[in-house]
Amino acid sequence: MNYCSECGARVELGIPEGEDRPRHVCPACATIHYQNPKLVVGSLPVSGERILLCRRAIEPRRNSWTLPAGWLENGETVATCALRETYEEAWATVTDLQAYTLVNLPHINQLYLILRARLVNQDFRPGPESLEVRLFSLAEIPWDNLAFSAIEQTLRHYCQDYSGAIFPFRILDGKPLR
Amino acid sequence: MNYCSECGARVELGIPEGEDRPRHVCPACATIHYQNPKLVVGSLPVSGERILLCRRAIEPRRNSWTLPAGWLENGETVATCALRETYEEAWATVTDLQAYTLVNLPHINQLYLILRARLVNQDFRPGPESLEVRLFSLAEIPWDNLAFSAIEQTLRHYCQDYSGAIFPFRILDGKPLR
Repeated sequence: MNYCSECGARVELGIPEGEDRPRHVCPACATIHYQNPKLVVGSLPVSGERILLCRRAIEPRRNSWTLPAGWLENGETVATCALRETYEEAWATVTDLQAYTLVNLPHINQLYLILRARLVNQDFRPGPESLEVRLFSLAEIPWDNLAFSAIEQTLRHYCQDYSGAIFPFRILDGKPLR
Repeated sequence: MNYCSECGARVELGIPEGEDRPRHVCPACATIHYQNPKLVVGSLPVSGERILLCRRAIEPRRNSWTLPAGWLENGETVATCALRETYEEAWATVTDLQAYTLVNLPHINQLYLILRARLVNQDFRPGPESLEVRLFSLAEIPWDNLAFSAIEQTLRHYCQDYSGAIFPFRILDGKPLR
């Protein structure tokens, strides 16, 4: 951040009165420009014993597999966002959304929230950001070619939980994928 | 948003190629300025049969009661944030954090995440943003003077769950307080 988005003046880095950390502050209009983590919301679409994954058509991690997920937009609830991203990336319709994992990624100022969901039918196909969309049995999950660590951690927990058929909500600390 | 934070040019509202909604776009350097919801994280500190609330020293809702909570900062995990806010607002130390409610507030582009937590000791006192900090039995909760709807909804669920001693994680749709 170089310029104030409100008045266009050059911003400075300083600790505002009553705060404990540096912020971008505008010396002209006194606006404090807070910067906060962003939330990625997605679904883990389940169809019987299989789950749906998308092969990415875009960078980062083009060609690797992921769950349908994307930035939470202003005006959305997390469920709205999960439904929208699942539809946009896989033209898939899901229902029965249940919060499953919240993954902290403080090193990149992100959080992932993944909701388990039931795939309503088999009418899915790649959206513009996907090269391929398909169902995988748990034994088929492409562990060596998953896009993001938060996806890998979520899927590892899903495989562990699957045998007991109990899927508790978890907060996880994310890590670089490899 | 009026000016590009990267180059200082006046931004324009337009739908970027491949997107489906208006964004603030810089005509000079082509930066797209995404705006996304922010996450408020807090704790519900429990001490036996009582819970800790803070009376706000600052606007909005000065003088009303709330759980210790605040914006998730860059570089933080949700647990780190909940611990920090609980300490800053109530000088209180909590442990055993468990995700309890995630409240959607799409009308104000916010989300609240509240974690249940156990108060470690009775050494608490008002921080700079609080006028008063005290423990309330569930029968004493000041329902007519709570600061925010997300706090009220969380406390109502807590009272309902308390009798059964089971506190499932919930995603709630927030609403204006009154």
